[in-house]
Amino acid sequence: MQQFNNISIHQYNRDTISTWFQTLQNNICQQLEAVEEGARFQEDSWERLGGGGGRSRVIEGKYIEKGGVNFSAVHGELSEKMQQNLQLESNEFFATGVSIVLHPTNPFVPIIHMNVRYFETQQNWWFGGGIDLTPHYVSPEDARFFHQQLKNVCDQHHPDYYPKFKTWADDYFFIKHRQETRGVGGIFFDRLIENEHFTKEERFEFVQDLGNSFCPIYLHLLQKNKDAIFGEREKNWQLLRRGRYVEFNLVWDAGTKFGLETDGRTESILMSLPPFAQWKYNYQTELNSSESFTLAHLRKGMDWLTDTES
Amino acid sequence: MQQFNNISIHQYNRDTISTWFQTLQNNICQQLEAVEEGARFQEDSWERLGGGGGRSRVIEGKYIEKGGVNFSAVHGELSEKMQQNLQLESNEFFATGVSIVLHPTNPFVPIIHMNVRYFETQQNWWFGGGIDLTPHYVSPEDARFFHQQLKNVCDQHHPDYYPKFKTWADDYFFIKHRQETRGVGGIFFDRLIENEHFTKEERFEFVQDLGNSFCPIYLHLLQKNKDAIFGEREKNWQLLRRGRYVEFNLVWDAGTKFGLETDGRTESILMSLPPFAQWKYNYQTELNSSESFTLAHLRKGMDWLTDTES
Repeated sequence: MQQFNNISIHQYNRDTISTWFQTLQNNICQQLEAVEEGARFQEDSWERLGGGGGRSRVIEGKYIEKGGVNFSAVHGELSEKMQQNLQLESNEFFATGVSIVLHPTNPFVPIIHMNVRYFETQQNWWFGGGIDLTPHYVSPEDARFFHQQLKNVCDQHHPDYYPKFKTWADDYFFIKHRQETRGVGGIFFDRLIENEHFTKEERFEFVQDLGNSFCPIYLHLLQKNKDAIFGEREKNWQLLRRGRYVEFNLVWDAGTKFGLETDGRTESILMSLPPFAQWKYNYQTELNSSESFTLAHLRKGMDWLTDTES
Repeated sequence: MQQFNNISIHQYNRDTISTWFQTLQNNICQQLEAVEEGARFQEDSWERLGGGGGRSRVIEGKYIEKGGVNFSAVHGELSEKMQQNLQLESNEFFATGVSIVLHPTNPFVPIIHMNVRYFETQQNWWFGGGIDLTPHYVSPEDARFFHQQLKNVCDQHHPDYYPKFKTWADDYFFIKHRQETRGVGGIFFDRLIENEHFTKEERFEFVQDLGNSFCPIYLHLLQKNKDAIFGEREKNWQLLRRGRYVEFNLVWDAGTKFGLETDGRTESILMSLPPFAQWKYNYQTELNSSESFTLAHLRKGMDWLTDTES
């Protein structure tokens, strides 16, 4: 796994951590632009009324139809409701991180999402994040590659990380009203605090390694599938699957809720929505089609590393 | 205002009320099919695991690109959370009503939504509902017509109804994270109980008159605009406005939340979503365009009956 820019000093505070996230944003944007051969990220810097701000970057390219790579570092006071939801002792908070959603042009390239973040209150701090893959067409080979890469990153830090965070992702990226997972999952984690087993440095190094794994993982899947031949049928299905992505993000996603309820910048929060989406009433897939194969695999508890088709 | 099928008996119970709603569904579907000259509603009857069921009808026509006219009559037990949200003394409920959302093909025809419903608990009963208009392009003339018709219905029942329910709609159909109203509003009301001013019969008659006003109101707007000439620019804008419709329904709409959290039939609840929608990052309208005119008018407190452009 390619690694660069991990911070080597031992004192981690808001500034060093948010500076690292900014660098991660720069690196990821640069590598995605290199693939796009022409399209460039459009950048908007913004300030939050309650404190802090961010740097949103959106690309509309040949291979990435619409993609956002956002950095933010915000602070201020939480509403009473939000404080209760997050079960915090105080309402003062600081949050910084990078959020990415890429909607590819080709239906055979999966949608990807990553978030890495650091949260601080007056009493405590923790890291959180996750990365998950939403193929329009499930490819067991691609899912295996994706999970193997994530397991490699996790295993470098703790043998419990992958199984625990994989299950957490299955539960988190679940569209309850459809009884479907959003895609083939990935990993999700929150409240990674300092304790007898982990120092702050070790927690942060895990988050850095995960952030640095984003480009090698996604560029492999993009390069492999970006020129796959598709027609109207596949584009149609892609738009239906994007509809589900919208449903998850607007109905269930805690990050979206947190953003909208803390008066975050709406355009930055909703950059995760696809360029186009479609809803068809009571759409049924054909028997034994690749669309029905996909639906049959959007379940919790799939073991993508071994035998997914058993 | 055309009226038919109002129930003349004095005893209103679950059965007579839900039967009237079924008749309303029949009448509305019949009148919409008459305009479509060929397209027919597709019907699905469904049962709810917890009790009751419904009859969903969806049309994909020439003028109505995607439209749903749903009837349901459900009963059972509410979750503790839902009971608290609704501030009810008991968790047993019965709910019946008709819900309509029509997404027209032509961007100059507005999206319309109506819901009329009756709710019963062990302690109490009430009527609720509303009707609101979401033009892709605001036409003050059409908005005036729409509000005048609603005021006519309201005024036949109580002089306070229109002003009170109009303000309620402004507050309800509001996309908080965009600081925009969903459209030009309409009326919204809930918990219309029996008291010293109104009998159950009078409350129900108001709901019946409103239900019966749907076709004359919408068919006027549809006939007037359905053949207006439009191009790619207008279709593009329509898809963006439909994106906002999705945002309102999935993030803020209490009816959608109630449906999804009480294990309602997902396909029937989400029939309100448009056939296609679009999101463009940080889209800006041109100065002095009809798109910017529209945005400038999506505000609470507009007096559509008199001078909207002052």
